[in-house]
Amino acid sequence: MAKVTTNNYTKINKVSGFRASGISSGIKMKKEKDLALIVSDDLANVAGVFTENKVKAAPVLIDLDRVKKGKSRGVIINSGCANVSVGKYGMIDAKKVITSLDKTFALGSGKRDENFLICSTGVIGERMPAKKVTDSMTKLITNLSSSGFKNASEAIMTTDAYAKTCGFKVNIGGAPVSILGVAKGAGMICPNMATMLCFFMTDANISSALLKKALKDAVGASFNRITVDGDTSTNDTVLVFANGASAGKSIKAGSSEYKKFSKMLTEISINLSHQIVKDGEGASKFIEVIVKGAKTNKDAENCARTIANSPLVKTAFFGEDPNWGRIMAAIGRSGAYIKQEKINIAFNNILVARGGVDAGNEKKSAREMKKKEIILTVDLGLNKLYKNSYKMWTTDLGHQYIKINADYRS
Amino acid sequence: MAKVTTNNYTKINKVSGFRASGISSGIKMKKEKDLALIVSDDLANVAGVFTENKVKAAPVLIDLDRVKKGKSRGVIINSGCANVSVGKYGMIDAKKVITSLDKTFALGSGKRDENFLICSTGVIGERMPAKKVTDSMTKLITNLSSSGFKNASEAIMTTDAYAKTCGFKVNIGGAPVSILGVAKGAGMICPNMATMLCFFMTDANISSALLKKALKDAVGASFNRITVDGDTSTNDTVLVFANGASAGKSIKAGSSEYKKFSKMLTEISINLSHQIVKDGEGASKFIEVIVKGAKTNKDAENCARTIANSPLVKTAFFGEDPNWGRIMAAIGRSGAYIKQEKINIAFNNILVARGGVDAGNEKKSAREMKKKEIILTVDLGLNKLYKNSYKMWTTDLGHQYIKINADYRS
Repeated sequence: MAKVTTNNYTKINKVSGFRASGISSGIKMKKEKDLALIVSDDLANVAGVFTENKVKAAPVLIDLDRVKKGKSRGVIINSGCANVSVGKYGMIDAKKVITSLDKTFALGSGKRDENFLICSTGVIGERMPAKKVTDSMTKLITNLSSSGFKNASEAIMTTDAYAKTCGFKVNIGGAPVSILGVAKGAGMICPNMATMLCFFMTDANISSALLKKALKDAVGASFNRITVDGDTSTNDTVLVFANGASAGKSIKAGSSEYKKFSKMLTEISINLSHQIVKDGEGASKFIEVIVKGAKTNKDAENCARTIANSPLVKTAFFGEDPNWGRIMAAIGRSGAYIKQEKINIAFNNILVARGGVDAGNEKKSAREMKKKEIILTVDLGLNKLYKNSYKMWTTDLGHQYIKINADYRS
Repeated sequence: MAKVTTNNYTKINKVSGFRASGISSGIKMKKEKDLALIVSDDLANVAGVFTENKVKAAPVLIDLDRVKKGKSRGVIINSGCANVSVGKYGMIDAKKVITSLDKTFALGSGKRDENFLICSTGVIGERMPAKKVTDSMTKLITNLSSSGFKNASEAIMTTDAYAKTCGFKVNIGGAPVSILGVAKGAGMICPNMATMLCFFMTDANISSALLKKALKDAVGASFNRITVDGDTSTNDTVLVFANGASAGKSIKAGSSEYKKFSKMLTEISINLSHQIVKDGEGASKFIEVIVKGAKTNKDAENCARTIANSPLVKTAFFGEDPNWGRIMAAIGRSGAYIKQEKINIAFNNILVARGGVDAGNEKKSAREMKKKEIILTVDLGLNKLYKNSYKMWTTDLGHQYIKINADYRS
């Protein structure tokens, strides 16, 4: 289910011209890695997508501004502190860190370059220990390596149970093009991004404007379609860096090269977003929600989002109970136009409701509910061509979610 | 906190001219009470408010139609089966029950009266055992008594931990007027009603049109302001019956008598809605969310609803952690216009955030978080007169919620 069709992709874990590192700087208490750096050897084209939460962390505000010029050398990321809701100190502390980095990597023209971006993730409302970060800068830079993305992916984790990376390579425009993605996220995961950070490094030769288009499409098909708990964070950031190191020709808008690039970026994004859902705080199941046959596309999306966010649906999955009545109730309050008697609901192709009533497959469907991965398909029956569909990914809601979130700061 | 100001109300548990009963009819497995009947000796004026879920149970559809004429003899209620998503059988089974009741209570004119209403609550998608209900009808009617509301309130429980009633009496228009409310609800509790049923009996002399207005106002100030899990049910119904048995004069629109009646109905509704929240599935805390100083009333409401429904905020309350950052994040994604630097947040009057940053009261606020009842006040700081405010009631989110809802049908 929900498999990434890898086409002819080759798996990769590095991209030429990019280096990364991940170390412990003492922000987190237990000497876990908490500071990462990703650097492009040359100035790269860059594009970003950011949280829509009106409470934005200081690093998000900095990046929103800096990403405008479409050029960047890389990004520094800390976990353990979100650097948000700390008043003026948010900007002061973030600037301290980033200025130190800008200076170190300045190209020697005497003019200070503002080429780095910054991301933070962790507890809200606590001051960022900027001195710990600047004191660790030498160690962080010394550790930069083309195979350092594993360390970087570990250093950006918060409640994540495991590090998340995905990289593919394919021929585009006559030469191999690589894209490597590094992400974090496990809770506060909601439609329209998550408490998540994601960084893509590619050697593609592509403009920042086109990069932005491809990124928006990729995010719309992946990170905006996952939900763990319906909460949205203050720090969500996805960045893509393209250094043009590939020998392939420049990727132009509307070309077949662009389509190949955009497709690969989307598939890596979907892969990473699935990793995030599977690592959903306390998740024991991975659930793909498909709504089809809706009156409109928007109806399909509303319906899918309401089901994927319903605590009652999610606890039923945790209890491995094929209680499709809760799905009917979610459909009914989603705002979508419906005709009850046309609705079919299936778990992994076992029909549990046919024409809005019980399909008599309680035992068979109970067996499907015991599986780790379940496809929940809702056919609203209003469109024979099965157009107007929407797909999302979510988790069950179990005891571990409560445990993790009740104890998070203690 | 959130106390009902009982004014000069006297507590009551019966209303002249109304009788009720509650028995076991075998719908529930363990011989628990599952069938209730409320009867007015004379034809009463009636008004109702119903779920906005588009998937409506058969009994809701019947009541929506029957309540239009503004007259009723009473209502039969079963728990254990919601009688929804069962196709044509929903209407067939509900009609079987209600027709039997209509016939028994027919006034002998030979013309069949359609004066009863019907409500169901329980599992969705299973057929209603109509025969069990009609077979129990004689017993149900035999047990009718003016002191039978306790039994009735027990018979309508599903996941409720306790029965919920509230009754007050006060002088209105020269004579005592009583209102008695009987309610159920514990989960699927969301803004815009809950998996809840509520029935009010009053001896007031008031038209069904005016009764409807008073009921809408009361529901808007109470049941529409509570949330346990953000889910909305297919069966929500609130009914009010007025038999005019009080010696007081007829209550007219806009009169001081109407205001007194409306106020008492609202206060009983608030009392019952608090009982429902406190019985919220797995709830260990009762939380009053107040948002004030918003730019608009709608902003205040959106903000309060987003906070009250946030799983991250609710798990923080369960963990007794004054993690106000999660409240900031909820405010930021609520859609309300905000200026971060103007936001104050307090738990029981202990300021945890002042001007959008930590107020330095971690220890004091941690003490407040250990209390059973907590008032969370958010002042958005945009309105010095503290207008544009909204109040809601919610619970924490703990392990019991998961346990109850994962195991509900098993």
